[in-house]
Amino acid sequence: MPKTFVIAQGGGPTPVINQTMAGAALEARKRYPKAKVLGALHGVRGIRDGRFAELHKVSEEDLKAIAATPSAALGSTRDKPDAAYTKLVLEGLEKVKADVFVNIGGNDTSDTQRILTDAAGDRMVFMHAPKTIDNDLMENDHTPGFISAGEFVAAAFKSVDFDFRSLPGIYVGIVMGRHAGFLTAASAAWRDEKDDGPHLIYVPERAFSTAQFIDDVKRVMDKHKRCIVAVSEGVTTADGTSLVEAIVGSDKVERDAHGNVKLSGSDLNRAFEQALAEGLPGKRARVDALGYLPRSFIGTGNRTDAREAFKAGAMAVATAEQGGASIALQYEGGKTVFRRVPLASVAAKTRHMPDNFLNKDGTGLAKAGTAYFERLIPRKYRTGRPFV
Amino acid sequence: MPKTFVIAQGGGPTPVINQTMAGAALEARKRYPKAKVLGALHGVRGIRDGRFAELHKVSEEDLKAIAATPSAALGSTRDKPDAAYTKLVLEGLEKVKADVFVNIGGNDTSDTQRILTDAAGDRMVFMHAPKTIDNDLMENDHTPGFISAGEFVAAAFKSVDFDFRSLPGIYVGIVMGRHAGFLTAASAAWRDEKDDGPHLIYVPERAFSTAQFIDDVKRVMDKHKRCIVAVSEGVTTADGTSLVEAIVGSDKVERDAHGNVKLSGSDLNRAFEQALAEGLPGKRARVDALGYLPRSFIGTGNRTDAREAFKAGAMAVATAEQGGASIALQYEGGKTVFRRVPLASVAAKTRHMPDNFLNKDGTGLAKAGTAYFERLIPRKYRTGRPFV
Repeated sequence: MPKTFVIAQGGGPTPVINQTMAGAALEARKRYPKAKVLGALHGVRGIRDGRFAELHKVSEEDLKAIAATPSAALGSTRDKPDAAYTKLVLEGLEKVKADVFVNIGGNDTSDTQRILTDAAGDRMVFMHAPKTIDNDLMENDHTPGFISAGEFVAAAFKSVDFDFRSLPGIYVGIVMGRHAGFLTAASAAWRDEKDDGPHLIYVPERAFSTAQFIDDVKRVMDKHKRCIVAVSEGVTTADGTSLVEAIVGSDKVERDAHGNVKLSGSDLNRAFEQALAEGLPGKRARVDALGYLPRSFIGTGNRTDAREAFKAGAMAVATAEQGGASIALQYEGGKTVFRRVPLASVAAKTRHMPDNFLNKDGTGLAKAGTAYFERLIPRKYRTGRPFV
Repeated sequence: MPKTFVIAQGGGPTPVINQTMAGAALEARKRYPKAKVLGALHGVRGIRDGRFAELHKVSEEDLKAIAATPSAALGSTRDKPDAAYTKLVLEGLEKVKADVFVNIGGNDTSDTQRILTDAAGDRMVFMHAPKTIDNDLMENDHTPGFISAGEFVAAAFKSVDFDFRSLPGIYVGIVMGRHAGFLTAASAAWRDEKDDGPHLIYVPERAFSTAQFIDDVKRVMDKHKRCIVAVSEGVTTADGTSLVEAIVGSDKVERDAHGNVKLSGSDLNRAFEQALAEGLPGKRARVDALGYLPRSFIGTGNRTDAREAFKAGAMAVATAEQGGASIALQYEGGKTVFRRVPLASVAAKTRHMPDNFLNKDGTGLAKAGTAYFERLIPRKYRTGRPFV
């Protein structure tokens, strides 16, 4: 009987998550020419509801065009299966006679695979292919999606720095990142000279204090007449409360099925606007969130990232016969290598930025951080030096 | 005696305003090899304060590298000279023995040139080279900077549409544009299929009503399960008050030297968030401002736009001996032609989107609008069709 593969995409999309989907689908078709390859629409929800795209009927050309398109072409989900939901997903997988289920996503998605493995015993193979712009998966040097998103963030802050040389003031750019500051720190990847922005970065790995923030901005303004700030939406005060939660009140914040606080409202913008208006009255200040652009912008999509994302999907299929696992991108001997690691070593865990990536006060990159981001996110554009 | 040119940049930067600066500087050096070419730092303010870059000493190679860099490399200003300031600027120009002053900018900058012309009589030539991402200069088919910024906006909304196919909900993207909706309307330039976003656009040329907005979003959500909205920061209610002013209170809004209301705070974000929370309770909604990225993003920078921007600067210098004027980009016989037009025909005036660019209810492009944006902003990226 021909094999049946189910592929799904979970969590926030990335510019290259479709590469992983295409990598898995094309590898399955290459290894098992008669295989059925079903793409679950909107992740586990599509499996539960019996909604699939028949990827074995899509031409290789069309799959490659989709691979080069940002965001999750199968649709994604933030559902986190509880016991009853898990049962329905397993029934859905059995209904289509799935042999292998490749779920592409981050730590929540890998946790879903772990839960399904615990529930399903040996009835099928559950593979996890890594994806997250947050770069926060354990066992990984970096994750598919991060390089492209990081490239957007580096480009955006390089651009805003040019803008604020022209019309000086204070800029605060809010970057996605709940628990890990990698993406926010990528804002500093393309600094060339000492006075280049971003001049300050704030990440969830270090306690955030509004008073200290204002002092930091004052210091930079005195020195450079402008101040470019990159801040993670998940920055957290010393008592461990996220800044959004501290502002909105923990009884009022919205949460998703995974218990994550909703960070995407304008509360954080407003808090920074007010802090700057009070701390540096009369200074031109602008606070913006980069929002979804880092994870979906059609104009970024780094080639290395695309290639690695494709390979991660292909390897999840190619090694499924060895049993369920997560695919990890590790760095050894000057290159990225792909390894199988236990689902439990990745599931529902968060990798934080190593302590030595940040300087002493936590507002800039230290040598190890600079080296890491320069290795991963090489400069893409040549620019001249402004006269101001 | 060798000629002296002064070049300045005014108003908000664009991705190609440095092309115009380089075009003017290199044309001056070509025509008058011994000319002094002074770049005023931060516009008229630099002239007043005697702060200049000596552009005749910068290598052609360096000037071309700067030309390809977004934002105003000489620094910009929002100062609007009153009588006393005008006198200081004229003194500053006479101090450096300026023969020609080329000021690159939008309608406020061209007004500065008009004021200087009125004050200075025949003592020197005042040229205006067009620049604005708002595309709102009279006499022009389009303005240098608009194509690049429009390309960013088209790409951003194409990207966000992919994102929201994956995780459905409502997205409101706020786009720069005080009085003219061209840049916001450019969000629809790359729609391919009928269900592609943006599904709704709101521009300053049509009265905005929050109740109508909610009805519109409900209609789109029923049809597509997601709703992508592009809205100009300058949208205005039926009584002629900008929405920001209506929200903040006209006594409390901040204004710049030109009397323009500050639109860049998060008040508008919050107003849309609250309207959606009340009008469509429980629906996932995200409101973001694209902020400065359309005008400064290093990754956009359309080649046609760059070439036209360069040429506008060169022509300002090349035709200065005919007397003060503004350079206009007009469209005739299927191509863009450059013409000299009187400063007064551009100065402090605003070109709005032609009425026939929008459909009847004003929330989408009509045929003439689609044709205009497709001509100006050709698709740059190939994408596949998602399964959802």
